[in-house]
Amino acid sequence: MNWTLASSAILCTASREAAIARQAVLTKPAGSLGQLESIAVQLAAMQGTDAPSIQRPYIAIFAGDHGIAAEGVSAFPQVVTGEMIRNFARGGAAISVLAKAQNALLHVYNCGTAYPIEPLTGVTDRSIAAGTFNFLQQAAMTETQCSQALAIGKEAVENALAQGCDLFIAGEMGIANTTPATAIASTLLSVDPAQITGRGTGIDDAVLAHKIEVIRQGIERHQIALTSPLRTLQYLGGFEIAAIAGAYIAAAQAGLPILIDGFISSAAALVAVKHNPSVRDWMLFAHASAEPGHATMMQALAAKPLLDLGMRLGEGSGAGVAISLLRLACDLHNQMATFADAGISNN
Amino acid sequence: MNWTLASSAILCTASREAAIARQAVLTKPAGSLGQLESIAVQLAAMQGTDAPSIQRPYIAIFAGDHGIAAEGVSAFPQVVTGEMIRNFARGGAAISVLAKAQNALLHVYNCGTAYPIEPLTGVTDRSIAAGTFNFLQQAAMTETQCSQALAIGKEAVENALAQGCDLFIAGEMGIANTTPATAIASTLLSVDPAQITGRGTGIDDAVLAHKIEVIRQGIERHQIALTSPLRTLQYLGGFEIAAIAGAYIAAAQAGLPILIDGFISSAAALVAVKHNPSVRDWMLFAHASAEPGHATMMQALAAKPLLDLGMRLGEGSGAGVAISLLRLACDLHNQMATFADAGISNN
Repeated sequence: MNWTLASSAILCTASREAAIARQAVLTKPAGSLGQLESIAVQLAAMQGTDAPSIQRPYIAIFAGDHGIAAEGVSAFPQVVTGEMIRNFARGGAAISVLAKAQNALLHVYNCGTAYPIEPLTGVTDRSIAAGTFNFLQQAAMTETQCSQALAIGKEAVENALAQGCDLFIAGEMGIANTTPATAIASTLLSVDPAQITGRGTGIDDAVLAHKIEVIRQGIERHQIALTSPLRTLQYLGGFEIAAIAGAYIAAAQAGLPILIDGFISSAAALVAVKHNPSVRDWMLFAHASAEPGHATMMQALAAKPLLDLGMRLGEGSGAGVAISLLRLACDLHNQMATFADAGISNN
Repeated sequence: MNWTLASSAILCTASREAAIARQAVLTKPAGSLGQLESIAVQLAAMQGTDAPSIQRPYIAIFAGDHGIAAEGVSAFPQVVTGEMIRNFARGGAAISVLAKAQNALLHVYNCGTAYPIEPLTGVTDRSIAAGTFNFLQQAAMTETQCSQALAIGKEAVENALAQGCDLFIAGEMGIANTTPATAIASTLLSVDPAQITGRGTGIDDAVLAHKIEVIRQGIERHQIALTSPLRTLQYLGGFEIAAIAGAYIAAAQAGLPILIDGFISSAAALVAVKHNPSVRDWMLFAHASAEPGHATMMQALAAKPLLDLGMRLGEGSGAGVAISLLRLACDLHNQMATFADAGISNN
């Protein structure tokens, strides 16, 4: 896993400054486009250009099952992970619809599901095992498995670059995966699970109380081993969460802008940034998840997400929506007239 | 102004219920698309269809000058109203860029500027006068002028319908127009101006204090006359604000969905809804303006805007951005697979 510690690409300071200067002379009151201004400036710095643009986003969905699902922490049965992989491939899932609407490339990486899946177009089989281990009984992954999962993310970024994509989005599918994501966030942020555990796909009060208890016990069981972000990922995480963390690190190293989705991908982002802080420079944040722990993670990452639509679907869907905002921010930055162009009196 | 009291078109209950039923069986946890679900359901009810869509939005920019600008309440000189009309026509303004990106029709209605403007393509001259009167000295408009301004909005809706548009957005341009908009909101909501007056295009603390005082004095001066929403509009409003209110009423009467922009258009929305409550059914809300009084108006209109990007530009720019969300909401509603289609286990 040595590759994960290499520095990220360097943002272009000259392009950032040129973009800030341009925003100041566009025909609008200073700052009046709010976050659309800062997004354009960030993309200019990432792309090293005066005229940032998003032509072809790459959406990688990482799927995996979780041993912890055996504890009854989710509203859906584990067979749904595989069923949804088929739905992604057939174009029926929310992220499939969004990818088509946004002219994005969508590809699924199967990191290991509990039930076998036939070969499918648009799905790469990188199964590590038939799901992770139950973290109440042992580490969710072996060290080797965790390395394998991180490498799947790196492979996805290489594929995105090979296809000329200019924005990286990670989505995920894995029944019960808010449980490992919450366990990771609780550990890395030293927060009581009760404060950040949510209902995921829609569990009731009794299951929520049980889920909190499961997370507490898992953290307690492995306390001594949780000495680093990657060890936390290995002991409490999941294949798809590790793949996303690996993808974020690889994207930042390659200088590929990242648009972070919701709860699960933010837990992966937290692992990536705590492990290799230089990765943070390449992250944009799509939306505030309705999952209660998400705001805590955003605060820890000093992030102000673009959207707050009460979404909590996963799959990369919040990022799939926010692509529109990135593109409009670029259009405004590139196409608006300046005060001088338009002969307008500036105060 | 009798036409303004006629009932709005009736929403289609059957389409609304069918849309709610469809959302419940799409392949996602119930409610997990948040506001994108409710937007699709509202559009289905407005359009009377199972498959709502936004093909061709109409963006009408109403421009007008304000006598109250003489009191020094704005950061920009009044000549900018006309300069920006030229910028809209040439395609250099934020809303021009957004209209192009969204494949929307953009048309400017000049309701009356302080400085004369040459004929321009894309601009209809409906000048009522060279700006309103200073409301510290007399009513901003005569009753006839207010009627004329309301009728300009109705004309814009007729043009939108004649061109087959399926969404109505009002934008505005008028130096100093946060002052009349705040005066209207203060009056109709019985709120002290100090609580909802903001910096508009960017005034400093001293000018802000003066602006609050001007608004207070205006309300005090006309208190006895402010007996109805339309009288408030006439005494404290502006040509473009009245045109927007008229447009909203006419759009609702014609059954044309409305996407409300920010601070100024929300003040017009407040007038329209207080005057004719049936108009509210046809309103969707694009964004939370950074202007402090906007949240108070949204509360009064029982509205939860889609975006909160810190925008405060006007021109209809927040609505121009939010068109993307309406379209994605429709795509998700229409194109996602159901649990039955996809053979997925629902809990």
